[in-house]
Amino acid sequence: MGDQSFVSQETRARVRGMVTPIALGAGKLGLTPNALTVIGFLISGAAAAAAAGQLWLAAAALVLFGGSFDMLDGGLARAQNRVTRFGAFLDSTLDRWGEGVVYIGIVAGASAAGFVVGAVLAAAAAVSSFQVSYTRAKAESLKLHGEVGIAPRAERLVLLTIGLVLAGLDGGVLPGARGQLWLSLGLGIILVTASITAVQRTLHVKTQLRNEEQGTK
Amino acid sequence: MGDQSFVSQETRARVRGMVTPIALGAGKLGLTPNALTVIGFLISGAAAAAAAGQLWLAAAALVLFGGSFDMLDGGLARAQNRVTRFGAFLDSTLDRWGEGVVYIGIVAGASAAGFVVGAVLAAAAAVSSFQVSYTRAKAESLKLHGEVGIAPRAERLVLLTIGLVLAGLDGGVLPGARGQLWLSLGLGIILVTASITAVQRTLHVKTQLRNEEQGTK
Repeated sequence: MGDQSFVSQETRARVRGMVTPIALGAGKLGLTPNALTVIGFLISGAAAAAAAGQLWLAAAALVLFGGSFDMLDGGLARAQNRVTRFGAFLDSTLDRWGEGVVYIGIVAGASAAGFVVGAVLAAAAAVSSFQVSYTRAKAESLKLHGEVGIAPRAERLVLLTIGLVLAGLDGGVLPGARGQLWLSLGLGIILVTASITAVQRTLHVKTQLRNEEQGTK
Repeated sequence: MGDQSFVSQETRARVRGMVTPIALGAGKLGLTPNALTVIGFLISGAAAAAAAGQLWLAAAALVLFGGSFDMLDGGLARAQNRVTRFGAFLDSTLDRWGEGVVYIGIVAGASAAGFVVGAVLAAAAAVSSFQVSYTRAKAESLKLHGEVGIAPRAERLVLLTIGLVLAGLDGGVLPGARGQLWLSLGLGIILVTASITAVQRTLHVKTQLRNEEQGTK
């Protein structure tokens, strides 16, 4: 994440400040961080169903709502001092499923409307978004850092929400509707920025390995 | 991988034995392991283009051909003693792109033919396949093992090839063609087995963490 992202550090800190009391409230209701992770995933599943049914505004609201749980679980875990390695694993893998199912839903909705470009862009946005997460995890499995880049999850989520909202407001993705253009634009920007991020992470890995090598000579 | 997979250890060893001389031959032609990785990805891109054009038999042949490079690069790196961490990183990430683009191509071909179920299953197979790779990388980033499960990449590749071949032989995915059923079956089995594999890896991570915890008490 960090300085290259278009969501500033201040915005991040402010959102985190807003989220912490909600996370603590959820904790008082007896919810564990892992339960919040699972609820967030289920809401993403609902967003996918809405997208499959071409209910784009509902899908946008659910994507944003589900995505905010991504901050709640981590926030609660930190606040309760319950950060565990299994929690980190579950959070990361279920976030990927959550992101993935939403795109599957968009493929379904677009494809059913005969909007082939939208279906293809949704699949491509899913693959490139996964690549962002995968390059980081793979880098870390090689004991390197991989968290650089312009389009981590929060950014992709904002782009997707905007694309879905505009698609919903401008006629959906029915043949001839302008919503097709908005959704294509949103998904296309995710595809491009996520792909750039994956390349940035690859170069970052290369740089670290070169520095290590020079360090040992 | 290992014993749970439906491709036996003997078959694996036999394929590796067949591949090693080819890998060494490629090395004599001046190709580096990383060059083989990139060529394999480009062939997967060609497979994606074939699938997008609904040329299912060509797509099947290219998927298999591109996938075999996956063994060549590792084989050559081992034979030449050129196993590097960057090579491992590039191999893993480009393999994911290669797998991903093929599914994007299938989404395009199916969607263009009005085969909505095929487009959705292709997107779902892509997401679940990615999850298999991601759970392993994430586990390894937490210094745990994650290579268990019934459907690693070689298995998924075989299933996809069979599905594409049968779809090509049985009328493609045009409305009413039986090829729709074969492709749906192939993709559906990948979706189910890959999802099971992701769950197996998650449980494997949980077991390892529990064992570690009991070890430290």
